[in-house]
Amino acid sequence: MNEVKRKGKAAKQVSYSLGNLSTEAKNEALEKIAVQLIKDKEFLLQENKKDLEEGRRTGLSDAVLDRILLTEKRIEDMAGGIRLLIGLKDPIGETLETIEKENGLLIQKKRVPIGVIGMIYEARPNVTVDAATLSLKTGNAVILRGSSSATFSNSALIQSIHQALESTEIPLDAVQLIEDTSRETAKELFHLNEYIDVLIPRGGKNLIETVVRESTVPVLETGAGNCHVFVDESADPAMTEQIVLNGKTQRPSVCNAIETILIHETWFDRHGEALLQALVKSGVEIIGDQLVCDALPAAKKATEEDWYTEYLSLTVSVKVVKSVEDAISHINKYGTKHSEAIITENSENASIFLNNVDAAAVYHNASTRFTDGFEFGYGAEIGISTQKLHARGPMGLNALTSSKYFIYGNGQIRK
Amino acid sequence: MNEVKRKGKAAKQVSYSLGNLSTEAKNEALEKIAVQLIKDKEFLLQENKKDLEEGRRTGLSDAVLDRILLTEKRIEDMAGGIRLLIGLKDPIGETLETIEKENGLLIQKKRVPIGVIGMIYEARPNVTVDAATLSLKTGNAVILRGSSSATFSNSALIQSIHQALESTEIPLDAVQLIEDTSRETAKELFHLNEYIDVLIPRGGKNLIETVVRESTVPVLETGAGNCHVFVDESADPAMTEQIVLNGKTQRPSVCNAIETILIHETWFDRHGEALLQALVKSGVEIIGDQLVCDALPAAKKATEEDWYTEYLSLTVSVKVVKSVEDAISHINKYGTKHSEAIITENSENASIFLNNVDAAAVYHNASTRFTDGFEFGYGAEIGISTQKLHARGPMGLNALTSSKYFIYGNGQIRK
Repeated sequence: MNEVKRKGKAAKQVSYSLGNLSTEAKNEALEKIAVQLIKDKEFLLQENKKDLEEGRRTGLSDAVLDRILLTEKRIEDMAGGIRLLIGLKDPIGETLETIEKENGLLIQKKRVPIGVIGMIYEARPNVTVDAATLSLKTGNAVILRGSSSATFSNSALIQSIHQALESTEIPLDAVQLIEDTSRETAKELFHLNEYIDVLIPRGGKNLIETVVRESTVPVLETGAGNCHVFVDESADPAMTEQIVLNGKTQRPSVCNAIETILIHETWFDRHGEALLQALVKSGVEIIGDQLVCDALPAAKKATEEDWYTEYLSLTVSVKVVKSVEDAISHINKYGTKHSEAIITENSENASIFLNNVDAAAVYHNASTRFTDGFEFGYGAEIGISTQKLHARGPMGLNALTSSKYFIYGNGQIRK
Repeated sequence: MNEVKRKGKAAKQVSYSLGNLSTEAKNEALEKIAVQLIKDKEFLLQENKKDLEEGRRTGLSDAVLDRILLTEKRIEDMAGGIRLLIGLKDPIGETLETIEKENGLLIQKKRVPIGVIGMIYEARPNVTVDAATLSLKTGNAVILRGSSSATFSNSALIQSIHQALESTEIPLDAVQLIEDTSRETAKELFHLNEYIDVLIPRGGKNLIETVVRESTVPVLETGAGNCHVFVDESADPAMTEQIVLNGKTQRPSVCNAIETILIHETWFDRHGEALLQALVKSGVEIIGDQLVCDALPAAKKATEEDWYTEYLSLTVSVKVVKSVEDAISHINKYGTKHSEAIITENSENASIFLNNVDAAAVYHNASTRFTDGFEFGYGAEIGISTQKLHARGPMGLNALTSSKYFIYGNGQIRK
């Protein structure tokens, strides 16, 4: 039996009992992991250095190297994150529904772990710790398949985690790392339906698309965000500038940043140029339709491809539209169902927009940057789901749970 | 553009607005469909006859022909089912969560339709009506892909449904049937991620496995039931006989029927033979391990394959085990995560069993036959999910819904 199958089987084996761990036992184990990571700081930095050296040697970009990099601060942040997680309510065991039947049958729907979670991710070693601790808190076993660019770091982190678990009642097989980071092991995970209950890809668009396309194991898709803001006819100009600049420039590299601005033609005539100038002043490159290019000669002409593009940088595409309906059609065609905003003083238009735009989060007069598990008060975030089944939008701990019907009788049979 | 793509696109197009239909509008349309089906009874029976004749000509089994068969009574039952559906609470628009942020942002998580549902099913024309009306009630567009053995019946039913929808505000594209029932159209549906949000296969094991394996569109798996009952050391013999006979013989062809009986060795020594005799008396064929064959010479010896088998008939496999832990291991290895029961007077063993068996529904001292949307009081049933994401166990209307965050602000931006 090869590594993936062997580890999958072991994970499934221990998963049945992890749902019975007490909250105290899980939190104690989490605290031990936090302590161990700090204790092992030197070792972790030293192993991380090997990944960085190898990365430099093979010509990884500075951006990727920064994602791989561990620092004292980053390790302390990991431990801090674990302590926040300890403070969160344990979702397992919660009674979701109680049905009492006339024949005396008591039916209780309770929250239980999903079972075995497979995590496929790129670069960032902090995902190793995130996934391990979130899975542990929710009573799930986890199989981690990181990227080859972070093997030394990931192995070291798992060593630390296992060291911490040694003195707990939690079996080490609850958290396992696939050491072989060849393409084959990822492919095997895609089809390990026997042992894995859900796969969660974390990383770039290509990784996510590959997992969704190839996996027969159910996937939790945490996806891309081609987010729009629609500036309606009656939008307040000052509020518009604030929200648009926040959405585009506060942190352009994240999935809830704005990628396209749609502007009502009447508003554009009056305030369009001022808004475009404000964006330029903030260092934003404008790609626009003909009207936008006419108003701002520095703008580049948009291609069809641009409307689909998640720039993740200080670039934005801008289009003038005739109505809220036009804006909705554009968004439902080009968007990725993540976060979409309307700025308007017209409450009817707001309602039409919010009801007809198909996205995980729809905003009236606020920045799309709020789509975030922490901002929503969930205290943890597995990712932001852009799919419609199981979980949609920011996923907290509940997204890592399933349910189970417990039925108590005293001999009832069906007539 | 071919039929599947064209209909997929049309479904997606109308789906955006179906979520805004009022409960009244949806219920009125449902009532019109019920009336129309009764009105078209003769036409439906006549078209159904064509399928039956073709089926006989091509040598379909009597069981399959019975599934295809429409009768006056069956058409009246369809209309009756629709009227029950009208009486159910509309899940769309329900507020699932309200978060008020200090900065004044109001976040509401509301229940919304999934969007476009693709239904792939075999034989039974009543699925056409079920799927159409359940989708309509939950504001989803639906694309139906029935089997070639029921094309005349399905086309006729869709004509009736469209006729009823003509006089409503609901666009006909909300309910579409793929007329081409070649394998190619099913395959196309598997990969129509652009237009279809979820695929639901209804039918035999092969169909479901094919859809799960091949589809890149997310699948709601309504699966097989290899259900067990474990008779513990302290099980009451009279209660045991009642529950076992009910589970095996009340309706052997359904997924919540019992397929394997596991018996504690001590109990087997005292009461095993009597239980086996009671089963034989009820016409049940016994396939057992060595101890069972020794006690009942008429029993056939079980092979490894038997423990995996969902007989769906008056056949049961019986195995003697040493402990509740043995029973749990057997079930978690051979079961299909559907419904599992323990009969015991020992509450600790009951608790160990319920907590460690991995299944959608776990029973203490009651028949597995209760796993059913109607028995649970959901008033409708899409199927029984044996997967862990999105929905598990009997699925009512809520399983056909997703959620969406509505966020109301007055200019909030992220700091």
